[in-house]
Amino acid sequence: MTKELQLDHLRGVLVRLEETIIFGLIERAQFLHNPPVYRVGGMGPPLGAETLLEFILHETERSHAKVRRYTSPDEHPFFDDLPDPILPPLAYAENPLHQNRVNLNAQIMVMYVNEIVPFICAEGDDANYGSCAVIDVHLLQALSKRIHYGMFVAESKYRESASSFDPVIRAGDAAGIEAVITVPEIEAQVHDRVSHKASAYGSELLKAGDGGIAPEKVRAIYERWIIPLCKQVEVDYLLQRLD
Amino acid sequence: MTKELQLDHLRGVLVRLEETIIFGLIERAQFLHNPPVYRVGGMGPPLGAETLLEFILHETERSHAKVRRYTSPDEHPFFDDLPDPILPPLAYAENPLHQNRVNLNAQIMVMYVNEIVPFICAEGDDANYGSCAVIDVHLLQALSKRIHYGMFVAESKYRESASSFDPVIRAGDAAGIEAVITVPEIEAQVHDRVSHKASAYGSELLKAGDGGIAPEKVRAIYERWIIPLCKQVEVDYLLQRLD
Repeated sequence: MTKELQLDHLRGVLVRLEETIIFGLIERAQFLHNPPVYRVGGMGPPLGAETLLEFILHETERSHAKVRRYTSPDEHPFFDDLPDPILPPLAYAENPLHQNRVNLNAQIMVMYVNEIVPFICAEGDDANYGSCAVIDVHLLQALSKRIHYGMFVAESKYRESASSFDPVIRAGDAAGIEAVITVPEIEAQVHDRVSHKASAYGSELLKAGDGGIAPEKVRAIYERWIIPLCKQVEVDYLLQRLD
Repeated sequence: MTKELQLDHLRGVLVRLEETIIFGLIERAQFLHNPPVYRVGGMGPPLGAETLLEFILHETERSHAKVRRYTSPDEHPFFDDLPDPILPPLAYAENPLHQNRVNLNAQIMVMYVNEIVPFICAEGDDANYGSCAVIDVHLLQALSKRIHYGMFVAESKYRESASSFDPVIRAGDAAGIEAVITVPEIEAQVHDRVSHKASAYGSELLKAGDGGIAPEKVRAIYERWIIPLCKQVEVDYLLQRLD
């Protein structure tokens, strides 16, 4: 099997992304909720129908699209009106994924703004709008990458054992697919590991009374949002696997 | 004294920026050096006279300028041809700094590209150019903020004891100013603290053999580059303090 689909390689990528996500959560949690960042008109009329977060994310994606970020099979944009790359295509190893239209970013955005930000930040407004929006952009990009990596995981599982998937896929049986891909022990391992890492990373700040984020919160973010959405990516991908 | 100049407040900002810088160093160190990111033409002709890092930094600064990042007295851009803000000015507390033209970003860029990146990254090319350039941008912005905070520190010290500064400032005596601002015990404290934090933050990754960055390297980055440049900011600022 191509390197991109070997479970060891996939596991390495996902484990390393945990740091990026935990660092991002710690960075965001140093500021208050700052609701105007997420409200249309929160900065007054100049940003039109976009929130400050959407405006900065959109600008960031335009720049990154120019340097071909979204030609990589593990990157998915939040916006669909991005400019073409100005760089010539990179010679990626052949895309190991089956063609698909999976993109959960709209859902990820709603979940992030309505659930994760209020969950990790103290209520209130400290006027650090720009700093928050910039951190939000990184965190959203990292969450999106982590969650969409489910496609590589799903493809790898599919190739290991197509015969256990084909009947449930043909039946369009999402719950059946979910049952085949779910390994509760592995999920528990992930939750324990991120909680352990978060306590290593957050302890200095918590000790200093200088923000930080409680390890149980990082565990909950994986448990309630990241893992379920990643499984949804796997299921959605597999539903399209035989098209 | 205004809150922005109180030593407790300044210390809090600087200590919290240590996390941002250490996280950035850990993120960058997961990739190889990737020299094409820093070479004009490294991505072929489309980026013209800019390296990939300069291109992404420039685009980022244009976006951030639009949402008035550089109207904040603690933010300094690397480029000087940025668009005007599209947002109305924020009512910042009055800028507590004396008017000045201090901006060490050109030096910070050279130091980062020529010294810090090869110091923290393993040699070689893993083709993760975009990911590296994006992390570089954050790290440069965090380093620039940390180093230019020297102006607030200098202003605070000046107001505490103008009479010990005025003669050396009038004499244009940079070495004399440096002698007045230097407190070796405080510098040693900073070096010890960042090295301690880096071992807390890096240990999980180092244990896992998954990158990370040695605590002595983080200490060295503060000792050799950040603290000396911050002191240079203080000196340059104070040399202009009576203009």
